[in-house]
Amino acid sequence: MISIVVIGFGNVGRHLCEAFQKANGVTLVQIYNRSEILLPESLQSVDITHSISDLAMADVYLIAVPDDIIPEIANTLPKSDTLVVHTSGGVSMNKLSSQKHRGVFYPLQSFSKIGIPDVKSIPVCIEADRKSDLKLLRKLGDSISEKVVEITSEERSRLHLSAVFVNNFVNHLYHISETLLEEADLDFELLKPLIRETATKIEAMPASEAQTGPALRGDTKTLEKHLHLLKNSPYKEIYERLTLSIQETYGKKL
Amino acid sequence: MISIVVIGFGNVGRHLCEAFQKANGVTLVQIYNRSEILLPESLQSVDITHSISDLAMADVYLIAVPDDIIPEIANTLPKSDTLVVHTSGGVSMNKLSSQKHRGVFYPLQSFSKIGIPDVKSIPVCIEADRKSDLKLLRKLGDSISEKVVEITSEERSRLHLSAVFVNNFVNHLYHISETLLEEADLDFELLKPLIRETATKIEAMPASEAQTGPALRGDTKTLEKHLHLLKNSPYKEIYERLTLSIQETYGKKL
Repeated sequence: MISIVVIGFGNVGRHLCEAFQKANGVTLVQIYNRSEILLPESLQSVDITHSISDLAMADVYLIAVPDDIIPEIANTLPKSDTLVVHTSGGVSMNKLSSQKHRGVFYPLQSFSKIGIPDVKSIPVCIEADRKSDLKLLRKLGDSISEKVVEITSEERSRLHLSAVFVNNFVNHLYHISETLLEEADLDFELLKPLIRETATKIEAMPASEAQTGPALRGDTKTLEKHLHLLKNSPYKEIYERLTLSIQETYGKKL
Repeated sequence: MISIVVIGFGNVGRHLCEAFQKANGVTLVQIYNRSEILLPESLQSVDITHSISDLAMADVYLIAVPDDIIPEIANTLPKSDTLVVHTSGGVSMNKLSSQKHRGVFYPLQSFSKIGIPDVKSIPVCIEADRKSDLKLLRKLGDSISEKVVEITSEERSRLHLSAVFVNNFVNHLYHISETLLEEADLDFELLKPLIRETATKIEAMPASEAQTGPALRGDTKTLEKHLHLLKNSPYKEIYERLTLSIQETYGKKL
């Protein structure tokens, strides 16, 4: 049985707590959060503390706080043989240098307040200096996910960069589209089947084979029409930049 | 029973033929294609022609050819009482001015060679000058789709523009991400759950509420790290442009 204390009860912390609470072979012994929190029904039985000096003993301390305060939190932890891991895509393992046993437990997903993602399908990326610590993290990962992969801090930062493209940037394109339709008094619902299909298609083929549209075809008339529609829009430059990039990628310069 | 001839057997034409063939209340009487085509099993019984002068009589001629040759094809059609429609998102109905009965039947989806989208869920956008023609198109739309909406050519071009953002541009971001991971020898499979979740999330909330990431948080350290990783990449400018746009949208300027 692996005992664990989760430090930080934001979106990542909360989702992981709920997953560990349901997992076999793991005991969630305590949750630390700086400020008062309301625990959901499923976590009512778990001890809460607001003071680092009251942390319970455990095999793993899992830090799920904003990136910039990870080193600070790590520094305040008692020196012990507990394995201390953070959960961030963008922070190097070295930021936990104050700890004897350190590692990373990065679930590759964007957690928000609403919605319960299917945790089992979320890849967990692990890293540690020591083999025995890696083994522990793999066991912890296996308890909540079907996919646990070992990657270095350098690889993780590249993975995180790519995740920004397919998650943050893609979501922003959804927002742009929603805004353009609102301005034209059209219903965003109309685009949802297309959004679903676009995401589904790359399960079956490389994105390069799924590419379609006026930029790829070199369809100047449509491109000009669209730029005219975007004449006074803050999103015109994004249209131009992405169109150019598609043309550069597939070699059809206009 | 509505009789229909489909003109053009590219991706859109083929998918619509297959849908009409299965639909109730519609007879697909003929397929026209300029060059030789191989019909799939399900369409073996349908007559093919390669000559416009041999077109069969029908209630509807449905033109599914590339945008720039729509007017040309429409001009070669015999003058008759047949309702002539095109299937393009970006072409005005007026391009069919040679016809007495004209309209548009635009399925809002990106059809590619591979994959069979769930046609029932694809919205069909219809347009016609005459009420009786609109009624006919609605019936035709209802036979293959759960959602048929009447929109003008002007609205359709705005819808098409928005579709470029959520389909062509989103798919290009997938490609960029795939390329970045390949360069780092990392598996794109790792990102697929995140891609699914990103697309699923906006079913339940506006994209603006689903937005997360370093640009939104104003997390300068991560942004700088990412730009450093993209130092010699053709995709650096896209990262910068989209980051700026997110910051302008949510008001967190750095």
